Amino acid sequence: MVEVISEHACFSGVQGFYRHASSAIGLPMRFAVFKPPAVRATLFYLAGLTCTEETFPIKAGAQRVAAELGLMLVAPDTSPRRTGLAGPMDEFGSAGEADDWDFGAGAGFYLDATAEPWARHFRMESYVVDELRALVVERFGADPARIGLFGHSMGGHGALTLALRHPGVYRTLSAFAPIAAAASCPWGEKAFSRYLGPDRSAWLAHDASELMRRARAPYPAGILVDQGLADKFLAEQLQPEVFEAACAAAAQPLTLRRHAGYDHGYWFIASFVEDHLRFHAARL
Amino acid sequence: MVEVISEHACFSGVQGFYRHASSAIGLPMRFAVFKPPAVRATLFYLAGLTCTEETFPIKAGAQRVAAELGLMLVAPDTSPRRTGLAGPMDEFGSAGEADDWDFGAGAGFYLDATAEPWARHFRMESYVVDELRALVVERFGADPARIGLFGHSMGGHGALTLALRHPGVYRTLSAFAPIAAAASCPWGEKAFSRYLGPDRSAWLAHDASELMRRARAPYPAGILVDQGLADKFLAEQLQPEVFEAACAAAAQPLTLRRHAGYDHGYWFIASFVEDHLRFHAARL
Repeated sequence: MVEVISEHACFSGVQGFYRHASSAIGLPMRFAVFKPPAVRATLFYLAGLTCTEETFPIKAGAQRVAAELGLMLVAPDTSPRRTGLAGPMDEFGSAGEADDWDFGAGAGFYLDATAEPWARHFRMESYVVDELRALVVERFGADPARIGLFGHSMGGHGALTLALRHPGVYRTLSAFAPIAAAASCPWGEKAFSRYLGPDRSAWLAHDASELMRRARAPYPAGILVDQGLADKFLAEQLQPEVFEAACAAAAQPLTLRRHAGYDHGYWFIASFVEDHLRFHAARL
Repeated sequence: MVEVISEHACFSGVQGFYRHASSAIGLPMRFAVFKPPAVRATLFYLAGLTCTEETFPIKAGAQRVAAELGLMLVAPDTSPRRTGLAGPMDEFGSAGEADDWDFGAGAGFYLDATAEPWARHFRMESYVVDELRALVVERFGADPARIGLFGHSMGGHGALTLALRHPGVYRTLSAFAPIAAAASCPWGEKAFSRYLGPDRSAWLAHDASELMRRARAPYPAGILVDQGLADKFLAEQLQPEVFEAACAAAAQPLTLRRHAGYDHGYWFIASFVEDHLRFHAARL
């Protein structure tokens, strides 16, 4: 059962916001779908820390080109909400769902948590890859053979890792300013140590660069990554050069564009989202 | 002195947010400017009820075409903020600045209030037409002879009334879903009775359709108005047919487009903002 929160005419298509009881998450989840006038293929977008299912539809300005290309755009929320989890105290003195902007609510990191108490609800990988994808196929008529994936920052990490962990599911792949080596940056270390526990070897299965190192040209038609050079998270958190080296080692064609002056926000995404939609549409 | 709140690279231009001490308002005011890579002309956008200077830059997706056309986009806030005014109680039991979503904060109606206590700070007409325009010319290099004006809802009312009240100031004019006859709709009656006092004859000088009735083809190159037909405020608050009749009486060329299925929000604006920018650019 999908509940319509709202639907709006937009570029001769429909921008909708929906809610459903998620079995993977065990709680209600919200997601957004832009349905173009004629659907040719589907593109999932995974958003970053603090974002919701509304962020991309409102801020990226993607609907115009999506309508032209016939791309259905699906945007899930970035985590379970209202889990009621307080969690064990950590070195920062807080580990509840909503205590930190970079962990818990708004920061699901697109994995299935294995450590308590998070394992019960923080199952964004199963939610995005299995449940929501099946729902979009069934309820919105997506062609399962023509689904692409992209995302931003934490959602760029999500796009790269989910695509590499589930070969054949996503036909095309791109990212904006992804967390490219999550197992070795502060955001990832904080999230993985809680969601996955202290064993760092388990983290590597959710690190985009490590996954790419173990692969063999999984996207022969290329991967597109855009990165702003005025992005304040670039050096410490994002590390696109690590992913670039991993792609080279895996013989994976990568177009990594570095844009002088652009920062980490949606002004950057809006400026280049058309290129991403055309990249996906040409390969879907 | 203009304080930079933030500036972001966007479509090879700069989307900026600024704050300054307004002499017209007597309080700090915020505004947004999108500066395209090369400025050919300037377009002021006036937003609607509850909006701020951020709404249009974030939600309308106008920067791409503005960058292409060389249009600088200026978006002021919709009212003074933090005036501390409580105001006399009215029939609703509340008349403070922030008690109502359709009056006071976020609802300046683009006029200079004449009734107390609002007359002290609620001077959006002087602010937009004189102070902010001069500032944009001086600080951002706008050509004062090439300035257009548009807006949405309350800001559509603002665009139509300010353009008609100040002939020669704005070379081009358009609106999305404007409050087209503010003196005879509930929003306008509530605002005007407080800002301007009970004498209804004074209200007519701030009613777009009444101003047009008194004019003679003030915009011979035409006025563009877009209106969604699924707009829940259409019949009671907006009344585009009244403005249409006034334009006919004034021999004013008007392109009033009615769009089936579109509502009052920014999904509607985003869908047609490119047409407005091209309309202005061709005439500026």
